Amino acid sequence: MNIISIIAKKRDKKILSKEEIEYFVNEYSKGNIEDYQAAALIMAIYINGMTSQETTNLTLAMADSGDKLDLSDISDCIIDKHSSGGVGDKITLILMPIIASIGIPVAKMSGRGLGFTGGTADKLESIPGYRVDLPIEEFKENVKEIGISLITSSLNLAPADKKIYALRDTIGCTANIPLIASSIMSKKIAAGANKTVIDITCGNGAFMKDIKEAKELASTMIRIGELSGKEVRCVITNMDEPVGKAIGNSLEVIEAVRALRGEMTDDVKEIVLALGSQMLIMAGFSQNIQEAEKMILNEISSGSAYQKFKEMVAKQGGDVEYLENLDKFEKAKYIIPVLADSRGALKEIDTEMIGNISVYLGAGRMRKEDKIDYNTGIIMNQRIGNVVEVGQALAYVHANDETKIDGAVKNLRNAFKLDPKKVAKPKTILGIIK
Amino acid sequence: MNIISIIAKKRDKKILSKEEIEYFVNEYSKGNIEDYQAAALIMAIYINGMTSQETTNLTLAMADSGDKLDLSDISDCIIDKHSSGGVGDKITLILMPIIASIGIPVAKMSGRGLGFTGGTADKLESIPGYRVDLPIEEFKENVKEIGISLITSSLNLAPADKKIYALRDTIGCTANIPLIASSIMSKKIAAGANKTVIDITCGNGAFMKDIKEAKELASTMIRIGELSGKEVRCVITNMDEPVGKAIGNSLEVIEAVRALRGEMTDDVKEIVLALGSQMLIMAGFSQNIQEAEKMILNEISSGSAYQKFKEMVAKQGGDVEYLENLDKFEKAKYIIPVLADSRGALKEIDTEMIGNISVYLGAGRMRKEDKIDYNTGIIMNQRIGNVVEVGQALAYVHANDETKIDGAVKNLRNAFKLDPKKVAKPKTILGIIK
Repeated sequence: MNIISIIAKKRDKKILSKEEIEYFVNEYSKGNIEDYQAAALIMAIYINGMTSQETTNLTLAMADSGDKLDLSDISDCIIDKHSSGGVGDKITLILMPIIASIGIPVAKMSGRGLGFTGGTADKLESIPGYRVDLPIEEFKENVKEIGISLITSSLNLAPADKKIYALRDTIGCTANIPLIASSIMSKKIAAGANKTVIDITCGNGAFMKDIKEAKELASTMIRIGELSGKEVRCVITNMDEPVGKAIGNSLEVIEAVRALRGEMTDDVKEIVLALGSQMLIMAGFSQNIQEAEKMILNEISSGSAYQKFKEMVAKQGGDVEYLENLDKFEKAKYIIPVLADSRGALKEIDTEMIGNISVYLGAGRMRKEDKIDYNTGIIMNQRIGNVVEVGQALAYVHANDETKIDGAVKNLRNAFKLDPKKVAKPKTILGIIK
Repeated sequence: MNIISIIAKKRDKKILSKEEIEYFVNEYSKGNIEDYQAAALIMAIYINGMTSQETTNLTLAMADSGDKLDLSDISDCIIDKHSSGGVGDKITLILMPIIASIGIPVAKMSGRGLGFTGGTADKLESIPGYRVDLPIEEFKENVKEIGISLITSSLNLAPADKKIYALRDTIGCTANIPLIASSIMSKKIAAGANKTVIDITCGNGAFMKDIKEAKELASTMIRIGELSGKEVRCVITNMDEPVGKAIGNSLEVIEAVRALRGEMTDDVKEIVLALGSQMLIMAGFSQNIQEAEKMILNEISSGSAYQKFKEMVAKQGGDVEYLENLDKFEKAKYIIPVLADSRGALKEIDTEMIGNISVYLGAGRMRKEDKIDYNTGIIMNQRIGNVVEVGQALAYVHANDETKIDGAVKNLRNAFKLDPKKVAKPKTILGIIK
């Protein structure tokens, strides 16, 4: 077997065998295949496609390329939740304590933010004292003891995926369904999940811009699951506007805590219910959606989910007083409203632009090594379909750097498109695929 | 302009602009574009193709990437000859002195051999004293004075092509018509030719294995010529068996000298006439093929072409006594016949294998840094269509290393396929495209 003949096969639109895909993944991981050879193969895959079996083989080979987390001593039913990323997506912070308080073990590793999408690990770190970097043993102990732990991974999970992902980024090969699907699934499989609910965000603030592609990604991941013995369900959610109101780390934690106390926007509630009910059904805790949704709402109204969140924060070293008294969170130095200068119905929000402005303000990273400014970001004040009067606030900029205010305000105002005509409210849940 | 958007454009089968192609070639030459990005683009070009205009723009950008030889002070009609490579191809050594003795200036730079194909520069160096590495000024002076010089290039001609060619080799992207055509043409244009006759070798001893591809390559190069103001004509020649009899450096020089003295095999004669008559017509020295062929044959029978060759060799430091007395060339230590062990008509010759055996014997290079053993090689004794009796010689191995004889003889015998039925002689000239 040699890499040139493997490249030539995919170049000629032939199907690669399991052995050929494993050879590529293993030898590329070891550095025995050059970046330029991998780049040529990835481009050939991008253009000529892969079958479901090839995509599954790529997924499994990448999942096997590094550490694999074994959670079978905790439960034989480990349910993970994944989001394909978006702006203001704090669903994990709300949903996972609910799931844990119902009694399903939550052992979840989350990433950090990069580019216009945020990362759960950064958000949790905005709670003073919270340790996201627990050693694996402590992580597992916590799950056994209190049923939940949210950390960032210290393991070397699917390193082949990391290497291939970084390469794809530099050669214009990110937006490809089989490559995206295998990248997501390889990490989930290496992280020990046997059942996964995936929130496929779709819209101008997500990697998937259109619903057709989102559905294709969903089907591809479900098919990988089938071929590799993992149950996968997908919920496609609207990302044509940010999720909820807050964008930025402590700002989102505050919103999440309020949600756990029962005070949440309609879209957040819909997403929590849609993802959560699929998880309850997969775990065998409920037979149908209505029952599952009721259970979820009960966990909130009873206060149990909020208690579970506080329990987890305390267990991981976080200062719970901040949660109990949200005013303790330090505010950004400057909070500036962005006012509408005309009247109209809010028709369109450039969500990726909003994500990028929040990065500019310090809430996210342009490069891996950038530091986060936890209390900066944006609070949205209007949703699509709202009629906005002149002088009403569209959003609020939370900034610490005075020199960035003007640019942020100007760009933020441009991110909102108003229309004289009436605009319908968009759906939040665009599809459930299983 | 940035490389990722250029890659994405070709990935999506769009047409690249002249500026985008120039950007890629220039920045890749300078090292500002990574090998893996170039690899992704080359693969996208391989799969999605290029228009004639794109191929021409690539050619011109590569031609402009390094030194360019200006021969306009010698003549406003510089005719070059190029072969796409094969086994036993000594046509340049015979044809160019004929052309020069007719009065058309010959200022030709040739390459060295690599892999199963030989190189004219190595062959010339097998003449004791012959200097292939003349400085450009001396090269041009010689052409002005005696009408001919054959050297190897000391210039940095089309370095972008060299870099892209080396990359293509490692990513399974060699066999692609637009890429091959632009590679050949970029070097010819940089070498100062405004008219070029290209010998496209076709068969199992050439890079082009089938006639359809060879014709497509011919049309592509002619089109590049049209779009860049250069006249190109192509002759497609058979490479299902070696050209003439000798394979190996001094062995081929000896065959070439004999040919210039009038003693040549039918196939060599046909190729010399076909290429030569196109050159005479392009140069305006003849109006039609018959007349041109007659002029060529005259140069041989009169001895003028042979004299011109000796004059060039003397001018470049070569010992002419070797040409006048071919026995002066040192022979290989072992000359071993390869005998037929059955009777039959010679149906097939594995020409690439024969090229590889000659490399094994020392006549060529596996790697750039390998040294050549000038008097080793193979003398063919049979051509396709001949009826061979048991015990008749198929070929002769010329070896200096005793340990290599058995392997060479055994493999050489396997390279000849005999058939009980009658076999037709193949055509030598498969097409003339202009």
